[in-house]
This record gives sequence, structure tokens and C-alpha cells, in this order.
Amino acid sequence: MKIRVGIFGYGNLGKGVESAVSQAADMELTAVFTRRNPQTLAVRTSNVPVFQEKELEHMQDKLDVLVLCGGSATDLPIQTPKYAGLYNVVDSFDTHAKIPEHFAMVDKAAKASGKVAVISAGWDPGMFSLNRLYAKAVLPDGQDYTFWGRGVSQGHSDAIRRIAGVKDARQYTVPVPEAVSAVRSGGQPQLTTRQKHTRECFVVAEDGADLAAIEKEIKTMPNYFSDYDTTVTFISQEELDRDHKGLPHGGSVIRTGLTGMEKENRHVIEYSLKLDSNPEFTGSVLVACARAAYRMNLEGMKGCKTILDIAPAWLSPETGEELRRQLL
Amino acid sequence: MKIRVGIFGYGNLGKGVESAVSQAADMELTAVFTRRNPQTLAVRTSNVPVFQEKELEHMQDKLDVLVLCGGSATDLPIQTPKYAGLYNVVDSFDTHAKIPEHFAMVDKAAKASGKVAVISAGWDPGMFSLNRLYAKAVLPDGQDYTFWGRGVSQGHSDAIRRIAGVKDARQYTVPVPEAVSAVRSGGQPQLTTRQKHTRECFVVAEDGADLAAIEKEIKTMPNYFSDYDTTVTFISQEELDRDHKGLPHGGSVIRTGLTGMEKENRHVIEYSLKLDSNPEFTGSVLVACARAAYRMNLEGMKGCKTILDIAPAWLSPETGEELRRQLL
Repeated sequence: MKIRVGIFGYGNLGKGVESAVSQAADMELTAVFTRRNPQTLAVRTSNVPVFQEKELEHMQDKLDVLVLCGGSATDLPIQTPKYAGLYNVVDSFDTHAKIPEHFAMVDKAAKASGKVAVISAGWDPGMFSLNRLYAKAVLPDGQDYTFWGRGVSQGHSDAIRRIAGVKDARQYTVPVPEAVSAVRSGGQPQLTTRQKHTRECFVVAEDGADLAAIEKEIKTMPNYFSDYDTTVTFISQEELDRDHKGLPHGGSVIRTGLTGMEKENRHVIEYSLKLDSNPEFTGSVLVACARAAYRMNLEGMKGCKTILDIAPAWLSPETGEELRRQLL
Repeated sequence: MKIRVGIFGYGNLGKGVESAVSQAADMELTAVFTRRNPQTLAVRTSNVPVFQEKELEHMQDKLDVLVLCGGSATDLPIQTPKYAGLYNVVDSFDTHAKIPEHFAMVDKAAKASGKVAVISAGWDPGMFSLNRLYAKAVLPDGQDYTFWGRGVSQGHSDAIRRIAGVKDARQYTVPVPEAVSAVRSGGQPQLTTRQKHTRECFVVAEDGADLAAIEKEIKTMPNYFSDYDTTVTFISQEELDRDHKGLPHGGSVIRTGLTGMEKENRHVIEYSLKLDSNPEFTGSVLVACARAAYRMNLEGMKGCKTILDIAPAWLSPETGEELRRQLL
């Protein structure tokens, strides 16, 4: 009997979840849910129906877990508490400052329904958070650093696209190699925002747009660009479509720490990701968490969890015995 | 109220556990236990008593968790089941093929006593196992690779020291850079033992020993060296003491995998360690697991666990709320 998965929201992330479910021998995609007209969606898995969101009100006996693939700004704060009241759910809520509030809302709903809700799954928050936890638990006397990239930041790309005269844009976040090397060598440098990352912008301007004005507006944009060394390169739509169509990303969490009665020994722990497709990798993490949510709920657990609360073995389809034999 | 830790066995690993406990604000070292004469042990933490092993029979109300720092060959198969019958315990049992058997024995004892026993903690088995599990759960369609080193293998150093005419020796396991690069680039090469690691031996010979014979005996030693490209360098005892006194180690677990409906996207997950002191890092992992063992037992859990069964948050002294705020 396979774990029956529903996907709510069929954008890049929903499609990433779909492809991850197709790779999980113990899971099957039961249905996709949308707020759009279901007939406009071409789901790639054969024989999977698409339903209107409202069908979620009565499908509790058809789904073991629902993966919520909406956005953190406005979708998930409503959807996750709502559907944690009906299903085991997983989301990728990533508005850092609001995680405590989101956790509280979802926990209340999931405890009331007796379901497990995993929030903030993905790679950051998610796998990177996990690695920060492990590294700090093992090396309490230390410091950690996170570098993101080289990869596409969709938020920064969107910010550029909102500028007058811009037709399209892609922004890459790039770690500064010297900063990464300094950290990897075991030093514990103090690094400013500017010293850690640079930003590369590829911009398609509208015909006749003022390129100098666009470049200036990007480079001085507060929060997004003004604290970084930013380069702006104007390219054609053809070039953008040809060379910048993917959504690669990645990065590293590095912790360096000292041990010994005299703190005489230095250690470096590094976890790094190089991802061709940010949404597909994120979707793959969500699917592993969906498996865990369902299995933890079968064991009688309920309430809101993050990946920090999930015993690793729950994420794997293999038994404890198989895991011990193969991985230890 | 701090978690009261006992250490049984005060060799390199026991000392590593001691230094890790000294860095844990929520734990204290209560006593060290030994099979030697307690008066011969100079424990570095002030005011910590040293007791004969037999005192462990009656100290259940003084200790919250006992860290077993004996060897996997003969000590732990006896000690871990025995003391899991009396205490929450942690060990670093690393005889891979015997882990299932060890698990079964310890599980029986810990279930009978109502305690938690964590076995096979450290970095491999341990943190590396954990990373194999996470990476495989997220990227099921992939392959993983483990590289060890550059670091001192104590087993291989011992094997050299047993050769006639050898006074002292240090053996370094070294990953082949080309193999690591090939894996990191996302390819999934088939690698032989020889293609993955080389072995560097630094040997102090006795006066008048037949160096050519020693070198030949090392290079042809089955299991240990014959499957590797091995270099042997003869040095003086002074050089060995000066340049090879530490016990550095490390390595990487790398998994590459594919996602996408057409498996069109490639991802690389890498976890790597660079350790100045293998026993102190291992001791640091044991101490984090000791915290988890005690806390899981307080919650009513019992039986044998590995790090694959421990929800990450149990390893950290911080609350769930603090962890979510700081790390997610």
C-alpha cells in the first residue's frame, strides 16, 4: 500500500514535488489541487486528476499527506493551518522572521486534528538548518557561516523586473571565493554582507529604455542590492532564454570549532549543495518530509514539526534494520 | 541541574569525551571509571574522582548517562549490553559487520532496564552514516561515495608496527584528488579501491633492520595495503614524534543524484570533515548523543538507538523555540 500524496499548487515547486514522488517507490501521486481552472493544468504524471481547491474539504480518506506548494508571503500562512486541520501536511514556509508565529498557528490546528504538519522544509530553511544544528551540537565552541550560490534568487530577479523599462531579468547570488576559502581554512573571520556575496544581474531592457538609470536603480536598491557589489549586464531576451533559463542554486554551511582542554584542536564541518534545479531539490526534501509526516502520524504523533524534530530514519523508506546494515 | 556524565575508559577517546563535556554548559563530568589502578590516572578535569569499574554496579543514582570509551574488538561487545542494563549509555562501536548483532544484544538489555543506549556514535559510523541517510532519502536516484582522509588510520599504523624490525609507524589514508573531483563534478564514476585512496606510511625502523624487506611486507599486506598504491618513507623517531604526533582525520560523503520527470537535473550533496583530532571530534559526537540519550529516556523512550533514530533537536541543549528562531 503506497503513501497517497496530494499536491496543492502546481507551479515550479509543485512540479518538483511531482517528480520526486515519481521517484519514490513507496509513494504515489493521487491528485493535484489548484485555485486555477483545473482544465488549464497539464499534469505530467499520467492518470492523475486535477481538482479545484474546494475538493480538499472532503478527501481525507483519499490522501495520506498533502504537500502545500504555495508561496510564503500570502498562501501558506492561510493554507497550512487550514489544511493541517484536515490532513498531514508539509510546507516550505521560508519567511524566517515569521516562522515562530506560523509554527504556533499550525501546531494548534494539527494538535486539534491529530495530524502531523511539517513546516519550513526544503534546503534553507531545511537541510541547511539541520546541518547548523548538528554542527553546533557537536562543536559548541565555534562559529557557523552560510554561503548561498552560485544560484538564481527568484526574489531578487522579481525585484529587478519591477523596475520601469525592464522586460525580464535573472539575478545570481554568488559567494565570494576568498571568503569561502578563509572560512574553510578554519579561521573565524568577521565578514560583512558585502564580503560574503556578490550579485550578478542579467537584464533585458525594453526598447529605448534608459540603461544607465536601470543600472543605477538596481545597484542602489535597499535591502536587495545596495549592500552588495552588484554587476549589471544587459542582454537580449534570446540570450536570457538560452543561457539563463534554469533555476540552479546551492551553497554551503560551514562550522569551524575548537576542542581540547586547551582548545588546541580545530575542526571544520562543511555541508554543501550544488543543485541544477532549486525547485526539484526542494520538492525532493518536501517529499521525504511527507513520508515522515505520514509515518510519524501512524505512530501516534501529532502537531507541528520541523525537520529538526524528525528522527532521520522516518525520512527513509527503508527499515531500521536495512539502514543500520547499509549506512552505519 | 546538569546532566551527570560518567566516562568508562580513559584513553584517547575517553579524554576526547572529557574535553567535550567541559564545553557543554548543560553537562558535568561526575566520575571516570577504569579497569586500571585508579591511582595511575591523572584526570584533567579538577575534582573528578576515578573509580574501579566495579563501582559501576551501584552508582545508578549518581549518573544520568555513561559514555563507554572502550574498543570495538573486545570491550564494547561485553560492556555495552552489560551497562545498558544499568544506565543510559553511549558507545562508538564501529565493527561494521557486527553492528546488527551488537544492536540486538544492547536493545534487549536496554529494553529490560528501561534505559536508552546509543551505539555506533562518532563520525563513521555516525555523522557520515547520517549524511548518507539524508542524501539518499532526498535523492533516491543517485549514488554515494565516501572518501576518508587525509588522516591517520590507527588500525593501519598498528599493522605496520607489528612487522619485525619496525619500531614505530604512522599511516595516513589519502583520498585520490582526481577521484574526488570526478565525483564532485556530478559524474557517477565506478571507482576501484585503488582509485579512491592511497596510503602513506612513515616508518621508524630498528637499527640494522632490512628496510627493503619491511617496505615489501607493508606493500603486500593483504586487506591493509595490497589493494592500494602505498608509499613507505623511513624516518627517525624524532621526526615521527615531531611531525606525526597528532591524530588528524576527516573525509567526505558525497551523493550525486538526478531529479526531474526525464531525470534531466543533477544535484551534488557533500558533507565533509577536516579534523585536527579524530578522538576529540568523536568524543564530541558521543557527548551530543549522551545528552540525547538522557533526554529521550526522560521522555519515556527505551532500547537501543543509533544516530539515525535520534531526532536532531535532542542533540542540542537549546529548546525547540530557540532552535527554530536561530537555525531555520
